[in-house]
Amino acid sequence: MSGTDHTIGYEDSKIYEFTPDLEAALTVESGDSVTVETADSLEGAVMDDDEVLESVPEEVNAATGPIAVAGATPGDLLAVHIDDIRITEPAGRVVTIDGFGLLDGHENVESPRSKMTPVDDGTLSFDDLEVPVDPVIGTIGVATRDDEEGYSTLIPHDHGGNLDTTDITTGNTVYFPVFQDGAMLAMGDCKAVMADGEMCGTGSEIATEIDVTLEVVSDPAVALERPLVETDDAWKPLASAETLEEACELANQDAIALLAAEHGFDDTEAYMFSSLVGGLEISQVVDPLVTVRNAVPKAYLSEPF
Amino acid sequence: MSGTDHTIGYEDSKIYEFTPDLEAALTVESGDSVTVETADSLEGAVMDDDEVLESVPEEVNAATGPIAVAGATPGDLLAVHIDDIRITEPAGRVVTIDGFGLLDGHENVESPRSKMTPVDDGTLSFDDLEVPVDPVIGTIGVATRDDEEGYSTLIPHDHGGNLDTTDITTGNTVYFPVFQDGAMLAMGDCKAVMADGEMCGTGSEIATEIDVTLEVVSDPAVALERPLVETDDAWKPLASAETLEEACELANQDAIALLAAEHGFDDTEAYMFSSLVGGLEISQVVDPLVTVRNAVPKAYLSEPF
Repeated sequence: MSGTDHTIGYEDSKIYEFTPDLEAALTVESGDSVTVETADSLEGAVMDDDEVLESVPEEVNAATGPIAVAGATPGDLLAVHIDDIRITEPAGRVVTIDGFGLLDGHENVESPRSKMTPVDDGTLSFDDLEVPVDPVIGTIGVATRDDEEGYSTLIPHDHGGNLDTTDITTGNTVYFPVFQDGAMLAMGDCKAVMADGEMCGTGSEIATEIDVTLEVVSDPAVALERPLVETDDAWKPLASAETLEEACELANQDAIALLAAEHGFDDTEAYMFSSLVGGLEISQVVDPLVTVRNAVPKAYLSEPF
Repeated sequence: MSGTDHTIGYEDSKIYEFTPDLEAALTVESGDSVTVETADSLEGAVMDDDEVLESVPEEVNAATGPIAVAGATPGDLLAVHIDDIRITEPAGRVVTIDGFGLLDGHENVESPRSKMTPVDDGTLSFDDLEVPVDPVIGTIGVATRDDEEGYSTLIPHDHGGNLDTTDITTGNTVYFPVFQDGAMLAMGDCKAVMADGEMCGTGSEIATEIDVTLEVVSDPAVALERPLVETDDAWKPLASAETLEEACELANQDAIALLAAEHGFDDTEAYMFSSLVGGLEISQVVDPLVTVRNAVPKAYLSEPF
C-alpha cells in the first residue's frame, strides 16, 4: 500500500481521448494524494522481442482516470505534484513502427522491431549496457476546452496529453490550465527511461504506479494557456505544435509572459532576457504534434501564482 | 600575456566567409596553443542603448583567422580545446533587429532595440538582474568542402560557422572535419551569456580573448561529416539545416553512427538506444540555418577516435 488517500486502477477506468465532457471515475479534494496505476502504452501487446507492431494501434497510451478535483473551475490551475513513480513489471519495451519515429523510412532503420529492456533494482538493461531507471509520465492531461472536439491520447496540446517530457518525473510539479469543472486529470504511457526527443518513437514503455498530490490553484496571478513544469531549479512552459519552430515560439512567448509579470519588463525586454538564460529544450519530435519547453531558471523567476 | 604559443588579433586578420580556399594568417603546429582576439559580432556598432541596427549588417560575425595547423589534411579531424575565454570590454549588448529573431514581427516585440549589459567581475547585469558570466564562442569553423562556394559567417553548416551553441565554452573540445589542408580555423562572435535557442537573435555580444589548443587527429576511427562537441559528461554531434526537424534527423544519425561503432549495434538498435539516454538539444533557432545537437552521455560512449 502506498499510503495515499485514494487509488485508481487502469482496469477501473481509462480513456483514449481527452475531450471537454469527460466524466469522473474518482472525485478527490484539493490537497488529496492519489495512487494511479498505469499500463504500458501498448497495453501488453509487446511482451517479447518477437512481438512487433505493424502499425500504431488505434487506441494507444491508455490514460488512467479521469480524476475530478472538487472545486476546480475554468480559469483555475491544477497542480500535480509527482511524489513517486514505481515500476510494476519486470521489463519495458522499445519499439519501431512503420510510419512513426524521427528516422521513419530511412534505409538503415528497420521497422517494425521490438526490444525488451529488463528492469531490476533501479537499473535497466539494454544488451550489456546498464541505464539508471528515471521514470517519465508520457501522457498526462485534463479535459479540453469547450470549443475543442478532443484529442486522442497520442496527441499533446494545451490540455497536456502526450507531452513525452523527461521533466514530468518524480519530485517535479506540472501545472495545467483548468478548462472544465473538476479538471478531469488522467495519466499513463510511462517510460522507465527516455531521451529528450524520444527519437525512435518510444522510450522504454512500462507499467507503473504513480503517487501524485493534487492541488487547485484558484485565481492565479498569472493565467496559463498551456502546461508548465516546475523542476528543482527552473520553471518550464511547455508548448506543442505542428512544427518545432512553432512550438518554440509558443514556449518562448509563455516564458516572456512570466518574466514580464515578475520583473515589470515590457515584452521586448523579457524576450531579450529570455535569450540570455536557460532556454529552449526539446521534449519530443515524434508525436502528431511536437513538444518544446522553455526553461527559465528559478534564480530569475519565483513562484508565479 | 596569456602564455600561449601564438597570438592572433582581430585587427590582424578576419574573415566574413568560410570558403574552400582560405589563406592562412598564422600557421601553427599540432599541439600548439593560440590566443585569439575577437571583436563583438557587431564590431562596435552598438555601444549604447540608443544605437540600434535597422538591418543585419552585410558583414557580421567577424571571425579571427584563418589559422592553419600544419599537417592537417582532408579526412583528418581538428580538435579545438577551449582553454579559456576572457571578456575584454566592460559591456556586451543584446539587440533585436527587424527580420531577425524567433518572434520577429510579433506585435509586442519591438525592433530595432539595443540594450547594453555591463559585465564586472564575472557578473553580467540586465537591469537589476545579475547573471553569472558563462562565455560562448558563437562562430567557429574551418574551410569548407571543395564543392561548396562558401558560407557567410552568419550561417552554420558542416564546417561549423555560426553554430551559436552554449556548449562551445571553456573546458570543452570541438572536433571539426578537415576539408582543406591546414584546416584553416577561424572564430569570433562571442557572448558573455546566451540561452539555448538564442531567441531574440543574440546573446550578450562581447569582445574576448580566447585561448585554444589545437590538435590534428589523423586517421580517426570514426569519420565526421559535421562538428562534434565534447563536454565533461557527453559527446554531442552538431547539425545545422533549414528546419529543426531536419537538423534533429542529422544529429540523431550522427549519434547513431557513434553508438553503432562502439557497441556493435546495427543502426536500428543504436537508434532505439539513442531514444533512451541523453537526447536532442537546441543550439539556436534564429540563424539562416538552425542548429541542434544530440547528447550521448559518456557513460555509454567512450572517446570515438
